[in-house]
Amino acid sequence: MKALRFNAGELEIRDVPAPVPGSGEALIKVSTAGICNTDVEILKGYMKFNGVPGHEFVGVVESSPNKKQIGKRVVGEINCACGECCWCNAGMERHCFQRDVLGILKRNGAFAEYLTLPAGNLRIVPDSLPDEKAVFVEPLAACFEIVGQVEFPPDALVCVIGDGKLGLLAARVLRDKAFNLTLIGKHERNMAIASKKFKVEAITEDSIGDEQYDIVVECSGKPSGLELATRLVRPRGRIVLKSTYHEKPSIDVSLWVVNEITIVGSRCGPFDPALEALASGEINPSPLIDGIFPFNQIAEAFEAAQKPGSLKFLVKFD
Amino acid sequence: MKALRFNAGELEIRDVPAPVPGSGEALIKVSTAGICNTDVEILKGYMKFNGVPGHEFVGVVESSPNKKQIGKRVVGEINCACGECCWCNAGMERHCFQRDVLGILKRNGAFAEYLTLPAGNLRIVPDSLPDEKAVFVEPLAACFEIVGQVEFPPDALVCVIGDGKLGLLAARVLRDKAFNLTLIGKHERNMAIASKKFKVEAITEDSIGDEQYDIVVECSGKPSGLELATRLVRPRGRIVLKSTYHEKPSIDVSLWVVNEITIVGSRCGPFDPALEALASGEINPSPLIDGIFPFNQIAEAFEAAQKPGSLKFLVKFD
Repeated sequence: MKALRFNAGELEIRDVPAPVPGSGEALIKVSTAGICNTDVEILKGYMKFNGVPGHEFVGVVESSPNKKQIGKRVVGEINCACGECCWCNAGMERHCFQRDVLGILKRNGAFAEYLTLPAGNLRIVPDSLPDEKAVFVEPLAACFEIVGQVEFPPDALVCVIGDGKLGLLAARVLRDKAFNLTLIGKHERNMAIASKKFKVEAITEDSIGDEQYDIVVECSGKPSGLELATRLVRPRGRIVLKSTYHEKPSIDVSLWVVNEITIVGSRCGPFDPALEALASGEINPSPLIDGIFPFNQIAEAFEAAQKPGSLKFLVKFD
Repeated sequence: MKALRFNAGELEIRDVPAPVPGSGEALIKVSTAGICNTDVEILKGYMKFNGVPGHEFVGVVESSPNKKQIGKRVVGEINCACGECCWCNAGMERHCFQRDVLGILKRNGAFAEYLTLPAGNLRIVPDSLPDEKAVFVEPLAACFEIVGQVEFPPDALVCVIGDGKLGLLAARVLRDKAFNLTLIGKHERNMAIASKKFKVEAITEDSIGDEQYDIVVECSGKPSGLELATRLVRPRGRIVLKSTYHEKPSIDVSLWVVNEITIVGSRCGPFDPALEALASGEINPSPLIDGIFPFNQIAEAFEAAQKPGSLKFLVKFD
């Protein structure tokens, strides 16, 4: 099958053997995959991952131990847990030490004609939900993770830093939980999506007054975002850290001590509420799509995805 | 009066005018003061403070708008709040933006014959509690802050990093809240104090197995302590950050995101439980005293306080 490989920082489409499903696993023919900032970070060396990247996908099940899944269109939870360790037993499968992660850690991913995942990781996509929306389940789930970790009192002053795809999606999810929500962005076009499509107030860093936020959600993907969050959060407030940085940020953590700030690391989230929000039409991610490329132009899609202010690029298989 | 001054990194005792109490303030004649790591950090440039340092003290009230305090031996809360802003109204006086802080920020401190503090900041010390113990109220209060911020379930696996005076005091306080408590130290003598005097298991970093801690309290005062905490804490666990670092640590914060770690900054704490624990004899800080110097030898006391593994040095006025 054809698959994308990162090879010493270069992108190349190669013919590789199709993956063989292990015990309990399904084989999925990928139809649509999304490019995430994590993929770009992996390209720069993050996670030292050298296999097939890609973890946002919609596909059709070709084989599965769960017969009901066969022939169905699915999305899939990307963390593959052992199901037996103390973390799995504690309901923390996404933190299983033995885990592999689709396209990120020890498991080839979705920028390929086929992928495998444990059958239990799959969710069937309703017919009414097109690929181009369903492919957002994974990043949207990561945004729903925030509301599972941090309480949002109705009067909380909340801001999201970053108007990239993660920041915009996070703002859209939080809009329904936080009534005083501001997005801090840089790109006029993306800020217009926040305000016009997602009904979230969007301002630039320059327009921030002496506001102090109860909760700051850092989605900028840049170490400077964590510095800004540290400056904007009120004493005893919270910073939700969604960004992963390839670089190590140089932060004056004494400010966290002096102001008794809490920093909450936040990664993958629950698929069910995300799929439900997309299927019901409650959340429409379409304004985030910047381009859809055929798979054989994935290198161009990656190039476009790395331009400042770019949003979601999808690749489609025939 | 005589007072210690940091002048371009040098310590000198100088004759300076005694402070004049402002409205609502008491004048206190200092009898005993303690040297804290923060003082040493200030010496290196932390907080860019250039006045009289010192914030751990016991003294006798010479004048006060609260007549009951006059002639009494007192300790004092070091944060002086405006009493009127939104943080003060929210009961967060220690985070008042207008605050000054004794010997740390905009207010001359305790390494001097006299200091001033708002009368409301003072707590009368019972006659039965000697200066050498009462002077620990301030650092002990900072350790009580931890249990106000973080819940310690009975079965939580907890460790404290650092066997300096802050780490040992924190371990002593947490011993009564966390039944599975380990101190990670470096100095044989200090670890013996932990185990023999404070009944807390103490091990070196080399002896750590593959234990993963629910809560890690970082008191090492060194950026490497935060790296170690990041390595030792379990997924979705908590790091309580007590240390302030003059240097900016270079931390792979992606690990906080991937493992969904929470970092809780923790500074000053409530005086009442600390004074109560010392007055009742429940906590005996005496094993931490490494030396008591007359005030005119404070430079020597500072030198001794900076030796690796050194514990508490006190200075006494005549």
